[in-house]
Amino acid sequence: MKVSVVKIGGNLIEDEACLEKALDNFAQLKGLKILVHGGGKLATQLAQKLDIKTKMIQGRRVTDAETLEIITMVYGGLVGKTIVSKLQAKECNAISLSGADLNSIQSVKRLVKEHDFGFVGDISKVNTQSFITLLKAQITPVCCAITHDGKGQLLNTNADTIASEIAIALSDEYEVSLYYCFEKKGVLRSVSDENSVIRDIDRSSYNNLIAQGIIADGMLPKLHNCFHALENKVHHVYVGSIDMLANPTEVKTTLHLNELN
Amino acid sequence: MKVSVVKIGGNLIEDEACLEKALDNFAQLKGLKILVHGGGKLATQLAQKLDIKTKMIQGRRVTDAETLEIITMVYGGLVGKTIVSKLQAKECNAISLSGADLNSIQSVKRLVKEHDFGFVGDISKVNTQSFITLLKAQITPVCCAITHDGKGQLLNTNADTIASEIAIALSDEYEVSLYYCFEKKGVLRSVSDENSVIRDIDRSSYNNLIAQGIIADGMLPKLHNCFHALENKVHHVYVGSIDMLANPTEVKTTLHLNELN
Repeated sequence: MKVSVVKIGGNLIEDEACLEKALDNFAQLKGLKILVHGGGKLATQLAQKLDIKTKMIQGRRVTDAETLEIITMVYGGLVGKTIVSKLQAKECNAISLSGADLNSIQSVKRLVKEHDFGFVGDISKVNTQSFITLLKAQITPVCCAITHDGKGQLLNTNADTIASEIAIALSDEYEVSLYYCFEKKGVLRSVSDENSVIRDIDRSSYNNLIAQGIIADGMLPKLHNCFHALENKVHHVYVGSIDMLANPTEVKTTLHLNELN
Repeated sequence: MKVSVVKIGGNLIEDEACLEKALDNFAQLKGLKILVHGGGKLATQLAQKLDIKTKMIQGRRVTDAETLEIITMVYGGLVGKTIVSKLQAKECNAISLSGADLNSIQSVKRLVKEHDFGFVGDISKVNTQSFITLLKAQITPVCCAITHDGKGQLLNTNADTIASEIAIALSDEYEVSLYYCFEKKGVLRSVSDENSVIRDIDRSSYNNLIAQGIIADGMLPKLHNCFHALENKVHHVYVGSIDMLANPTEVKTTLHLNELN
């Protein structure tokens, strides 16, 4: 049995027309599926309105108590519930989850070493059975970037990582495809050229692309998640636009565990 | 089989110690159970911080687009996810739901007659099967005061009404007890006297209490929901403090469908 795990990035969520299109594509995807969403830019906007400063260290949001409240409101409430109501209208029986719901994803608050990231959680356990129960009932989980520590504390967790950890957890039971959807058509050789999509990346070209500085910044952790998934039995991993869900021939980046010739 | 449907009011949610105690009581309640929560005062506070005016007509919140966003963030996100993470720590396997999740509660946007209440929904259908599926899997639904119209629109719906409609919907399958928990020990004969709890109210004493002005304001719709539930096969309906969940002898108001002598 096949399962698709689809992560949609912040830029697809912010704009209403983009979100509608993304959810149309997702709803049409056949078979069992899970959606994972971020919502970072909307959280930043709300923080600005409330005059709460957004602190970033190494591209990661520092999550103090106020920021955690904002994230819980935006990811868990506004974005999650909006997506679910739209999916229901498209006849996709969805349910929005944080990691606390059904104890679906537990994490451990990150230890303070060089930096204090605040209420940020590193995933310790995906409750595979919760997801299987929902999938078997033909229910589509919609997961936001929030986990919990099992002791009553919600924690902020990177959505890309959540997607790869769910994909890995389900790979014992299912053949899993993991799709990272964002505003580009794939990993670009040149950031300024939308048509410079690198169609295939294997482990050695990955290392070369890092060495050349072509894979950098935000793409580094994303591709790290991709290879981590492939190394842990996830069947297929793709990076590209939302169009790749509806159209298998759409230009995209396919990640490969084994060396390509 | 028995099911308890427990509504907790806004004042129990706002204060962290009160919420912790309420959830302790709820978690200890034996058997299948559903929690329904509001969160109106927290929504009002966020609206104030964002400089959005809260409009009330006849004690009901007018829900414009901005207010609906606030409600979705506060009820669906902050309150729902906080409650679920705390319940998980108390070994209660909870999941937070809006009416859009699992298509659990559909509603119809209220028509504009004398007043325009905005994005307010009157319940048209409780998806009983969704609740039964969760209950049978030993999962505790935590429902917020948000429904949807099935066409992609979230709608604000009174939490007391949600509790009674869920209780009614489940009464074909289960013996349902409905608990309205708030900051008082029951319906008071004198608002200023906490010890003036009216222990039992039947239909004729209800009418008398309304005629005397003892049941008034916010208690009117609450008690209307109570009798509506009793008239539609809900077995037991109680109004009182959260202590009544843990202690059956706790002072409370019991509602009766049949006349007491």
